[in-house]
Amino acid sequence: MTTLNKVVLAYSGGLDTSAIVPWLKEHYGGCEVVCFAGDVGQGADELEGIEEKAVASGASSCHVVDLNDEFVRDYVWPTLKSGAVYEGRYLLGTSMARPVIAKAMVELAVSVGADGICHGCTGKGNDQVRFEHAVYALAPELKIIAPWRTWGFKGRTDLIRYCEAKGVPVRSTAEKIWSRDRNLWHISHEGGALEDPWNAPPDDVWMLTRHVRDTPDEPASVLIEFESGVPVKVDGAALGPAGMVERLNDIAGQHGVGRIDIVENRMVGMKSRGCYETPGGTVLMEALRALEELVLDREARRLRDDLALQFSHVVYEGRWYGNAAREAIQAAIDSLMEPVSGEVVVELFKGHATAVQRRSPNSVHDEDFASFEADEVYNQGDAEGFIRLVSLPQAIRARKQRETAQGVS
Amino acid sequence: MTTLNKVVLAYSGGLDTSAIVPWLKEHYGGCEVVCFAGDVGQGADELEGIEEKAVASGASSCHVVDLNDEFVRDYVWPTLKSGAVYEGRYLLGTSMARPVIAKAMVELAVSVGADGICHGCTGKGNDQVRFEHAVYALAPELKIIAPWRTWGFKGRTDLIRYCEAKGVPVRSTAEKIWSRDRNLWHISHEGGALEDPWNAPPDDVWMLTRHVRDTPDEPASVLIEFESGVPVKVDGAALGPAGMVERLNDIAGQHGVGRIDIVENRMVGMKSRGCYETPGGTVLMEALRALEELVLDREARRLRDDLALQFSHVVYEGRWYGNAAREAIQAAIDSLMEPVSGEVVVELFKGHATAVQRRSPNSVHDEDFASFEADEVYNQGDAEGFIRLVSLPQAIRARKQRETAQGVS
Amino acid sequence: MTTLNKVVLAYSGGLDTSAIVPWLKEHYGGCEVVCFAGDVGQGADELEGIEEKAVASGASSCHVVDLNDEFVRDYVWPTLKSGAVYEGRYLLGTSMARPVIAKAMVELAVSVGADGICHGCTGKGNDQVRFEHAVYALAPELKIIAPWRTWGFKGRTDLIRYCEAKGVPVRSTAEKIWSRDRNLWHISHEGGALEDPWNAPPDDVWMLTRHVRDTPDEPASVLIEFESGVPVKVDGAALGPAGMVERLNDIAGQHGVGRIDIVENRMVGMKSRGCYETPGGTVLMEALRALEELVLDREARRLRDDLALQFSHVVYEGRWYGNAAREAIQAAIDSLMEPVSGEVVVELFKGHATAVQRRSPNSVHDEDFASFEADEVYNQGDAEGFIRLVSLPQAIRARKQRETAQGVS
Amino acid sequence: MTTLNKVVLAYSGGLDTSAIVPWLKEHYGGCEVVCFAGDVGQGADELEGIEEKAVASGASSCHVVDLNDEFVRDYVWPTLKSGAVYEGRYLLGTSMARPVIAKAMVELAVSVGADGICHGCTGKGNDQVRFEHAVYALAPELKIIAPWRTWGFKGRTDLIRYCEAKGVPVRSTAEKIWSRDRNLWHISHEGGALEDPWNAPPDDVWMLTRHVRDTPDEPASVLIEFESGVPVKVDGAALGPAGMVERLNDIAGQHGVGRIDIVENRMVGMKSRGCYETPGGTVLMEALRALEELVLDREARRLRDDLALQFSHVVYEGRWYGNAAREAIQAAIDSLMEPVSGEVVVELFKGHATAVQRRSPNSVHDEDFASFEADEVYNQGDAEGFIRLVSLPQAIRARKQRETAQGVS
Repeated sequence: MTTLNKVVLAYSGGLDTSAIVPWLKEHYGGCEVVCFAGDVGQGADELEGIEEKAVASGASSCHVVDLNDEFVRDYVWPTLKSGAVYEGRYLLGTSMARPVIAKAMVELAVSVGADGICHGCTGKGNDQVRFEHAVYALAPELKIIAPWRTWGFKGRTDLIRYCEAKGVPVRSTAEKIWSRDRNLWHISHEGGALEDPWNAPPDDVWMLTRHVRDTPDEPASVLIEFESGVPVKVDGAALGPAGMVERLNDIAGQHGVGRIDIVENRMVGMKSRGCYETPGGTVLMEALRALEELVLDREARRLRDDLALQFSHVVYEGRWYGNAAREAIQAAIDSLMEPVSGEVVVELFKGHATAVQRRSPNSVHDEDFASFEADEVYNQGDAEGFIRLVSLPQAIRARKQRETAQGVS
Repeated sequence: MTTLNKVVLAYSGGLDTSAIVPWLKEHYGGCEVVCFAGDVGQGADELEGIEEKAVASGASSCHVVDLNDEFVRDYVWPTLKSGAVYEGRYLLGTSMARPVIAKAMVELAVSVGADGICHGCTGKGNDQVRFEHAVYALAPELKIIAPWRTWGFKGRTDLIRYCEAKGVPVRSTAEKIWSRDRNLWHISHEGGALEDPWNAPPDDVWMLTRHVRDTPDEPASVLIEFESGVPVKVDGAALGPAGMVERLNDIAGQHGVGRIDIVENRMVGMKSRGCYETPGGTVLMEALRALEELVLDREARRLRDDLALQFSHVVYEGRWYGNAAREAIQAAIDSLMEPVSGEVVVELFKGHATAVQRRSPNSVHDEDFASFEADEVYNQGDAEGFIRLVSLPQAIRARKQRETAQGVS
Repeated sequence: MTTLNKVVLAYSGGLDTSAIVPWLKEHYGGCEVVCFAGDVGQGADELEGIEEKAVASGASSCHVVDLNDEFVRDYVWPTLKSGAVYEGRYLLGTSMARPVIAKAMVELAVSVGADGICHGCTGKGNDQVRFEHAVYALAPELKIIAPWRTWGFKGRTDLIRYCEAKGVPVRSTAEKIWSRDRNLWHISHEGGALEDPWNAPPDDVWMLTRHVRDTPDEPASVLIEFESGVPVKVDGAALGPAGMVERLNDIAGQHGVGRIDIVENRMVGMKSRGCYETPGGTVLMEALRALEELVLDREARRLRDDLALQFSHVVYEGRWYGNAAREAIQAAIDSLMEPVSGEVVVELFKGHATAVQRRSPNSVHDEDFASFEADEVYNQGDAEGFIRLVSLPQAIRARKQRETAQGVS
Repeated sequence: MTTLNKVVLAYSGGLDTSAIVPWLKEHYGGCEVVCFAGDVGQGADELEGIEEKAVASGASSCHVVDLNDEFVRDYVWPTLKSGAVYEGRYLLGTSMARPVIAKAMVELAVSVGADGICHGCTGKGNDQVRFEHAVYALAPELKIIAPWRTWGFKGRTDLIRYCEAKGVPVRSTAEKIWSRDRNLWHISHEGGALEDPWNAPPDDVWMLTRHVRDTPDEPASVLIEFESGVPVKVDGAALGPAGMVERLNDIAGQHGVGRIDIVENRMVGMKSRGCYETPGGTVLMEALRALEELVLDREARRLRDDLALQFSHVVYEGRWYGNAAREAIQAAIDSLMEPVSGEVVVELFKGHATAVQRRSPNSVHDEDFASFEADEVYNQGDAEGFIRLVSLPQAIRARKQRETAQGVS
């Protein structure tokens, strides 16, 4: 048996992590357990009374740290700027939250002199990778404990029985139907009937967004202001990073915006089906993409698209710290987005978020150039030479083939 | 003055190409003008009576060639399979049609012994590039004539006056508000008030799709069957390539599906704003993307995403013939999509096309693997080593930095 | 203790795999051990008498399979065509050999009804990954045994003692200085003094190539003929895949061609320093790259470069079977290289392999076009329009910035 | 006839640009001609007496600007850091020099109030694009004059006759065999017998590098020190950017290092054959690539390789100014190379530049990790899980196919 002195535990107040508290003490030589909860917008219901629950489960203390603005500013904004969307659909809500939580938790572990760190992630998912990767990069000397890969408990019944035996108060006993993860940016739903992709997502799975049939019959509009690819105001109000996302979640959710249904490839080599809701994030993605269209030239845009694909994998895998590739991609994106400032009006209606108006002081769209009438700057005759040179390889090839064919006959 | 014997003209029956007929005869030594119209689904109204119009304008004959199935089978399906979307939005409707039209026209020119070929594209757009590129690749000996880059006419008034002087019957005299291009896959709208991206697209611009507020209050469903990434049946009916697109356009248009509003980078170095409608195409993209999620592993999917980006540029630029890169990308895509067969149910509702059910005999999604319960195939302990090795570079770096820091102190 | 019935062992006749034979029998319930050696050109000295050695070590039999031509034809040629070079230097000799060996071994295991498969690779290298990946893809039901990850032996002394105890005859007792792997394409050297990259490779590490100072003072020439990117003749002789590589190894080695010294990133997250010799391979790479320069246009070439980078990782990782991305990349490469046929003269001199003459019936290089004198096909005036359109985004941006600056003043 | 007031001419003192001086005055209304020569290391012989020659040809003045350090620091170093090599061989010597020359020339034009700018590049090459692109990006209001695309002169004889008629003193009358361009980084040779790639480059084409047979029989060594990917010292001496390149050119040229023979794809759609000499550059590339191998992890390295390919095209095309993609790629490269500091010993011998020793304080190569003996940090058992998860998609696919096959039977 490994003996540890003090273990910091990622604690949610739910059944799993409540059971982990006594289990750690039992299996690591009576170690002290310090609970940690990073507030990334999972909701008051989850955080309320969490300190008391932790102590009642046997923890020595519970630290709740507000990470909302840091989460949005340092993880969400860079990802938004890059345009990263995992496998064409997933806006990376859970992926971005894990590193900020793990970092704060490692900092706590170091400050309280812990020698172990523990999480309640399953052994089949991505979160264990994201979490532990951060620990290896930031404090590799910490012993990582992942009970779900180790213990013999098979499901909730086992856990409830163990909690009762250890005197840990357990509130809910009902089986959970969906596996959920919520933060400011999104909520994910997995498991249960969703696992068969021939099943349409049932209505009761969704939480943040109304069904389209239940949305208002009048559209709403929201004006978003960006500076260098970063949202700075919503309808004229500088609400701060977290505040803007909250505001947009609220209004976009009412209009049914932001539902995603995907069968994705996990890092660990298997597929899983997820239903995600990202109301405010969907609005921001639409707005920023519409704005950059005014500013980025063809090559800059193509590079942005290419980097977005690469960054989507980096972010999905949660490889944030000590990762030179991540830093380099962000440096390139920051450079590209530097002039992407301006205003976008997004219309919300029946599940759609549509950028309907956009302008930028750095727009290189010019009505005078683009219109089909004659002008003085662009000489239409230029196109002839352009096309001829662009087509020269094909023209040479065609001529060569003809010569060869004639030579043969 | 260049003298030509016979010129094949891409003829639409509209004002511009009607004026070109006498203009060619006047400026190329009284050459014979043979008109050509490729039927790619632009609509009966455009093609009806086109032969008579051509002859009335002074052409010796007019050849209308049905390219509908060839267009969809050889240009649309490969692009659909690849997932190519230009600059994140544009489904490439016009881009794909130009090469098939140009090829048929070059074939006509060769068969009638023409020495010139002519189109009515403006000197500021992409179509001139796509068109002429095909000529250079297929028959570089043909003299290309692009009157809009050459003549002095400034607008419709000039053209109408010229037609009247030459005795060419001109039907419509009103100024066109929008510049439009229509085929089976889409219709594009450009120009006029759309040129300012701070203007939302006015309702009257749209033609194929209803406004969301005017769509049915009940969703419709459509079942699409794919074989190796190619649609083969819609609701059980094998309608042929063009037939399937028509059917889907009809139903999806009623439900308001497929509107796109983009400021895009043209090949010729300027931006333009376009509003596109691709109802059936939007449904097919959603369906195929949902199906491939069941089949493609992470690397295959990432390669598909990468190739899609590259292919979107190739297709947009219309560089189809004699283009080794195009052929190679298609070979890779064909290989990737070979196992992507199966069925997808797409729900159409209030402007949304949403894949709600999907299955494939080649699915590698496995409920047993993905669910969070214990199983015999996947050993949760494997994840520990996996994460450790994935994180090793970061762990080594952290250890090294610590050693360095300690060495300094 | 797991009990197995029959285990197929990748057997080299060396100390490690000789010790594995009794170890398997001891630890897997007296299982039968069937030895396997894939002949990929590791040399007669290694294969000579290998059957006797295997049986003397306790194996029931030893199967030696000639994989030379298959190795070169199905693994080396596709990699050569792609241009894949791992991290800019490594010609992938060992990486390509592992899959062909593993496949033959799995086939043997299936044909003799084995339930286990075993290799002698270390737990820190790439070969274990390449080997086991093939087993998982081809026969996942086989139990994989990797003794070096399991047993307690620490080094050669332990192994020699164990062999003596088990009555396994052991020939050499000296410590090996270098860890080596040899096949038709290359030989690798690792370990010992090489581990410190501040140490230059000592002269005695190299085996296939002479030191430059000891090479002939007169150059040699070799004429290589390619069909669609595949070598078919050397100096006019159709020697077959393996025969061509042997011939080129011989002559290029005498001229000191093909030494590589690299610190590479292994799959398993750490770096290692390797010295490789690939004499014939270096000649073939130079020749094919020089030939393709005559044929591939700019885009095709860029795509080839991009795919080469991707393929270098696929090959390095040995992810050959069941890998849709590998198949797709090869399909694209085959398409690109289809016209790359012709002849190349490579001069060998003082460690250099330099393509000095090259020609192809599909060359699109045309002296007439490229020379700087006037000609009728290429109109120099075309360049003006070309440059103007290529530069238009920058010209618009400059004009806009000027307007903005003036507006402010 | 366009009338201009003052034209700045890129002046080399050779026959072509000498003829351009009177030609400009004759064809642009007697405009003043101000000559410009950017010193980028083309050699004293070319620059000596250039002012007198310019004035004797009719120019009002001639400005020679020393751009050597700026050229190396702002154009060569970033390209070196990126690892960009065009089409696998070309170290981009001419490509990098054009933008720095064009920028200085535009600055001169603006400062002297010129309204035109002129160069002597041919209409078939890349340099016209690089040059004019810079003008469009930096001062689009300047009228660009490219006489070789306009005038009727066919070759040197015409030019000599014109110079004589205009009283311009012409020194050399012999036909030039090769078209050459020289700067600090390289010299290029094109034209003449080189145009046929079946001709080996004749010995007399090379200028900066000895033939291998004439090099010293003893190797030389040079120690290069880098900070964040930038060379800072050669053999302990801080010689400045230009000074370091000069020193390395000298020693490497003596050892025959840096000859390149390529058939490349020009921007303007045709191929050309070039022979280049880059002695010092070849040494620096070898050194920096060897150093980065110690520092960059696998992903960072792969990103560097990918960006190098993209950057090679940007640099080749000379699209330096107003190019957001160039700036973004450089930002990413700067980020990646930040820790690439250290020392490399390069051995020069018989045309080879080989990094034989290398070390970096930021090396993540660790002999302890990489050696095959047991250690405490890396647990060999980790590899088992790693391989199993990496191979899971293939294992699932194999299992599925087996189930399907069994289901059928």
